[in-house]
This record gives sequence, structure tokens and C-alpha cells, in this order.
Amino acid sequence: MELKLYVDRMSQPSRAILIFCKANGIEFEEVKILLAKRQHHSPEFAEVNPMKQVPAIVHGDFKLFESHAILIYLASAFPGVADHWYPADVRKRAKIHSVLDWHHSNLRRGAVGYIFNDSIAIALGLPLNPKAAAEGEKLLSASLAMIESYWLEGHGPFLLGNSEPSIADLSLVCEIMQLEVADENDRDRILGPHKRILKWIEDTKNATSPYFEEIHSIMSPVKEKLKELKVQASQQSA
Amino acid sequence: MELKLYVDRMSQPSRAILIFCKANGIEFEEVKILLAKRQHHSPEFAEVNPMKQVPAIVHGDFKLFESHAILIYLASAFPGVADHWYPADVRKRAKIHSVLDWHHSNLRRGAVGYIFNDSIAIALGLPLNPKAAAEGEKLLSASLAMIESYWLEGHGPFLLGNSEPSIADLSLVCEIMQLEVADENDRDRILGPHKRILKWIEDTKNATSPYFEEIHSIMSPVKEKLKELKVQASQQSA
Repeated sequence: MELKLYVDRMSQPSRAILIFCKANGIEFEEVKILLAKRQHHSPEFAEVNPMKQVPAIVHGDFKLFESHAILIYLASAFPGVADHWYPADVRKRAKIHSVLDWHHSNLRRGAVGYIFNDSIAIALGLPLNPKAAAEGEKLLSASLAMIESYWLEGHGPFLLGNSEPSIADLSLVCEIMQLEVADENDRDRILGPHKRILKWIEDTKNATSPYFEEIHSIMSPVKEKLKELKVQASQQSA
Repeated sequence: MELKLYVDRMSQPSRAILIFCKANGIEFEEVKILLAKRQHHSPEFAEVNPMKQVPAIVHGDFKLFESHAILIYLASAFPGVADHWYPADVRKRAKIHSVLDWHHSNLRRGAVGYIFNDSIAIALGLPLNPKAAAEGEKLLSASLAMIESYWLEGHGPFLLGNSEPSIADLSLVCEIMQLEVADENDRDRILGPHKRILKWIEDTKNATSPYFEEIHSIMSPVKEKLKELKVQASQQSA
């Protein structure tokens, strides 16, 4: 049964799903839906996901969207996936749901609010919004502090004190990796104080190498492009 | 093994969990954490939920927060719960996760943004914020339109075309029920155009009667109290 992933590697939940499939030997076809070209608004893609967002998947005749739901589905429907990604134990599983639910209204909302308004908007021809970026950064920083002091407080290197990564590690780390397209001084200001998070990102990368680096290789050229667009915009407004 | 629910009946996800337990014959102790009295900021409650939010549960020595994670846990850990609440089938389950994930950034965000800034803030001694309420209402109305045209488009009366309710029906309907504390003209303006949603609320109520009405009986006196506080505030500012 064929699995199609409708993704844009610039989208952090898309990257989480791509890395998950590659790290678990799940075969798929990557269907690129380029947000910058507004391909998510096409009538064809609305048939896949009426919410017009990536990622979405089609597995045989089954359609699904929302990245956490997709990660859980892939971990459950493909028998080769190791238990640590999404444990069968009801309590371990419940804790992973708890992290993922928390993510929606905290880390994700903060990170998207910051990066979009500080950088990515410019690539879509929209003005940057320093006030909205500052609000996003506030929630982002509070979320990073909570990850460091609570979700990573256990003995193991991963969330919930686990010794191996779960889908929650992959989802949250890919979110934080979005900071790679920001100015390096800004990234250092936000992430620098969180040594435990920096180590956790490295541990998650190592646990999914070489796929993590392969899927994130898009970040560096995008960062350069955004830098260029920011310089152009500041020259035009000067 | 004892189950304790840390809840405030004014909190919509708290109500969903209370109704779920009662409708499924799950015994529990209700520990009231009154948000208006800032009891969620007590050091004792921080031991239960470091995020200082209701609902949270303690089941024996197991602690959990985030309402969707709690509903899934209760449906999985208590053997008497009927399959329709959280189906064992991987694809049916995936669709429920998809609705619940969508809920976070759409219906919930819109409903909370509207109701808090239009009404509830005043009970916490905070100023109402018409601009933020209008932004919330915009997202709330878009979410209601999407529920009506997409999530409720199937043959059955419940989300995803199901013939019996799932935890997603309960979670989303309790969210919409928060509109009961708003001025009735506002509630009618927002909900009136959505006949299918009004029927779905009734169907969900009937499927969980008399617990649905019992747990929501708090709404009417709170509405009167908020009305009173609004009159006082307008007299003071006049």
C-alpha cells in the first residue's frame, strides 16, 4: 500500500515526518507542496487536506492531516517501528500525548509567532512585524525554560527522562530547529542560555542521523536567502 | 486505585472530563481548583501540574495533565469504556487525534480568545478587551464553519460521520458550551447560523444525559453574575 507524504521541507512538522519515516525504514513518495509558491491553496491539495496545510498523508485510500496524528498513525500502522517512538504502555503513551498537546499552545505557538514575524514573512512578500515577533519570542522563551526545567528533568537525555527518543522529541526538536533560519545572534540569544536543550537537539540528531541532517540541509540556503531579502527590504525603506 | 480529578467546572476541558467519567461509570474524587480564587497557583497544585492549569488527574501514583491526553488515558486505562469513545482501530483513532489536534489551534484558540476577552476577564478583575474579543470571534466563527462543513459532513450525527460520540465530540462541544456565559444576543449571532452544530450539541447532550446538564448547571448562575459585573463596570466608567 503506497504512502504519500505531502510536505514542504521548510515546514517543521513536515521535516519531523520525513525524518521519522526515513529513520524507521518506512517507504514513501515525497510530494512537494511548496508554501512559498502557495501550492497548499491549489484545488488538488484541498482534496488531500481541506485545511490547506502541510504535512498531510495519503496511505492507500486513507487521508490524514495534523502532524502529531500522522506521527502516531505511522508509528502504529507500520509494524517495524521500535516501541520507544510511541510506547504501547498506556501510561508512557499518555505522557507523550501530554507533551504533544502542551506543544500546540506553547512551544509551537511561540516559535511560529517569532520566526514567522521576524524572518519568514519576508519570503512570502509580507512585512516583518517586530511587535508580534517579540510576543512570539516571549512565549518561545518561556516554553524553552519549561522544557529544560520540567520535560527534560529526568535521568535520560530525551523528554520525560527517556533513554531513547519518542515522536515528541522529534516533533519538538524540529520546531526548535526552525530557529536555524534566524539571524545567528538572535538564535544564540534565545537558545544559548539553554545548555540542556542544545544537548537534547544534538542527541536527537545523533539518534536519527544521517536523516536529520539530510532533511535539515534546506535550512542554511534559506537562511542566506532571508538575510538577503532583509538587506534589500532595509535598503528600500532607508 | 483511586482517581482524583483536579478541576474547575467553569473550565470547559474540566467539564469534558467530568462528564466522560460520569457517563462511563468511572469512580473519582472531584478536587476543586477554583481559578477565580487563583487556587491553580498554589504550591500544592504545582506538585500535581507544574503548568498550573486545570484539568489534571492523579490515578494512584500517576499524574497527568492536558485534557486530550487525560481523555485518551481514561478511555484506555478503564476497561468499561465503550469502543466508540476512543476506537481501537488505528485509522478511526487517527481521525480522532486529527480532530483533537486541529481543535488546539482553531476552535479552542478562537473560543477562549472570544469568551475570555468578552466576558470572563471581568470576573478575574481584568479589563475586557473588545479588540482581542473580535479577533477571537473571527477564528471561532471560521472554526465553527469548518466543523459544520467538514468534520460534521458525514452521515452520522457526530464528528467524522460517526453514529456514536467520541472523546472529540465531548471535548469540542464542551468548548462551544462556554458561549453559554456570553450575552444571549452574542451567542445567537455566533451560533445561530450553524444549525448542524446546534443539533450536534443536542445529540452530544442526549448521549451523555443527565451528566451533561448536571455538569453544565454552573453556566447559568455564572452568566447572571458576569452580566451584573458588566453593568457595574459600565456604570463605573460612565
